[in-house]
Amino acid sequence: MNREKIFQQIKTKESFLCIGLDSDYQKIPSHLRNKKEAVFEFNKEIIEQTHDTCVAYKINTAFYEAMGSKGWEILEKTAAYIKKKYPEIFLIADAKRGDIGNTAKMYAKSFFENMDFDAITVSPYMGSDSIHPFLEYNDKWVIILGLTSNQGASDFQYFYSDKQNQTLYEKVISTSCKWGSYDNTMFVAGATKAQEIKEIRKMIPYHFLLVPGIGSQGGSLEQVAEFGLNKKCGLIVNSSRSIIFSDHSENFATSARKKAIEIKESMKIILDKSL
Amino acid sequence: MNREKIFQQIKTKESFLCIGLDSDYQKIPSHLRNKKEAVFEFNKEIIEQTHDTCVAYKINTAFYEAMGSKGWEILEKTAAYIKKKYPEIFLIADAKRGDIGNTAKMYAKSFFENMDFDAITVSPYMGSDSIHPFLEYNDKWVIILGLTSNQGASDFQYFYSDKQNQTLYEKVISTSCKWGSYDNTMFVAGATKAQEIKEIRKMIPYHFLLVPGIGSQGGSLEQVAEFGLNKKCGLIVNSSRSIIFSDHSENFATSARKKAIEIKESMKIILDKSL
Repeated sequence: MNREKIFQQIKTKESFLCIGLDSDYQKIPSHLRNKKEAVFEFNKEIIEQTHDTCVAYKINTAFYEAMGSKGWEILEKTAAYIKKKYPEIFLIADAKRGDIGNTAKMYAKSFFENMDFDAITVSPYMGSDSIHPFLEYNDKWVIILGLTSNQGASDFQYFYSDKQNQTLYEKVISTSCKWGSYDNTMFVAGATKAQEIKEIRKMIPYHFLLVPGIGSQGGSLEQVAEFGLNKKCGLIVNSSRSIIFSDHSENFATSARKKAIEIKESMKIILDKSL
Repeated sequence: MNREKIFQQIKTKESFLCIGLDSDYQKIPSHLRNKKEAVFEFNKEIIEQTHDTCVAYKINTAFYEAMGSKGWEILEKTAAYIKKKYPEIFLIADAKRGDIGNTAKMYAKSFFENMDFDAITVSPYMGSDSIHPFLEYNDKWVIILGLTSNQGASDFQYFYSDKQNQTLYEKVISTSCKWGSYDNTMFVAGATKAQEIKEIRKMIPYHFLLVPGIGSQGGSLEQVAEFGLNKKCGLIVNSSRSIIFSDHSENFATSARKKAIEIKESMKIILDKSL
């Protein structure tokens, strides 16, 4: 999926919401848990109730791997379901992979060829050859960890070089944005770090940012938008748990819809003002 | 598996070799490829021919994920096969995971509980909360990326802070070695960086290092040993492709054995001199 298509979808839906399918088997409503493919059934209902509120789904591979090979099957089925039924939606594998070239190639094959994800999150620690294999695909995206939303982000991402006058996350972004372009590279920037998003936006005015950390993690959508928006929106803001697990009753999916619409409405106001 | 058991095995086998099961379906001998679980059959034969030459197997998850849910099943079966038949062998998931706490917990469940791996490789970029969930298991290990063997390592791992007088990889090692202890934490240090291994050994005299990069990547075993050995060996040196794909004929497994024995013989000489 190319950048223009993502932007068109944002305008059409008046939303830049990404819904994270962190579908932990232990947390899905109890009435579903005895079903054969409980997590897939859960995902399907969530997708049916939310696909018109969001422009992206982000599937966190960890929650599927935790169910073993059956879980991997559900990961594949969920991706295929979205791709077939809602091909306009930007599909992200939140896998945070990162390994040497010949291994990265395998990950690219897995997520881009076998499962047809549009994007994958990757860790930059191992450098360019761990990213390049993903950039060889047309209309596919790498989403490189820049500044993450968690507490541990402060351990290394702010590591500062006086000589280069930049922190590690700035070094990562300013270096790796040149490996590809804003047509195939996005960066993760946590919503809990709105001030830094301001600086990141100066460094990369045109790239999309994938922003986790609103909702359960406490980041502010308004602040993220204030500092992160560009002329093509440039933001995909993720919420996972606070949408998909807002209600554990049989009405979980309509509750998820309500939560998603709430966020979408805030996004509409932001977009109306700025685009 | 605790540190003492690893060391005992090293002494008994006179080897500190880890064999990487990077079992790429495309590269296994053609006579196996039509079998139902070709990669598992391949792994089984390699394991049968090499288990007495090595102290660890390292399973690179990428090559299994590339085969989809069937591949994940083969990953599970291979891990179970090793654990059941050769429980003395240290079993590493080379997964290079790294995500926020609640996600890391899922990865820990997947690799430590479901599949009973002894260790998992993790990327440090997201900091302490991405590592801690793995440290909560008894006799399980995290193997944190320190200085990797690939070319891209130079992009960020040498990023230098004048004020702290250290590079990123030194910062990572000196910080994260305190999150756990040398009883549950190892570090990846590439064989292609022997001089740096000398410095790393000064920083962490007691930790085990997992050293990839001899064989196909060109690192020297002798140099690694010269700079990296400690009183409990402290090294697990990995070779993958140059052992498992040394021969593509029907004799691939005995050829792998020959290759593994060659390395083991060199290791025996090194151990005889130093322990």
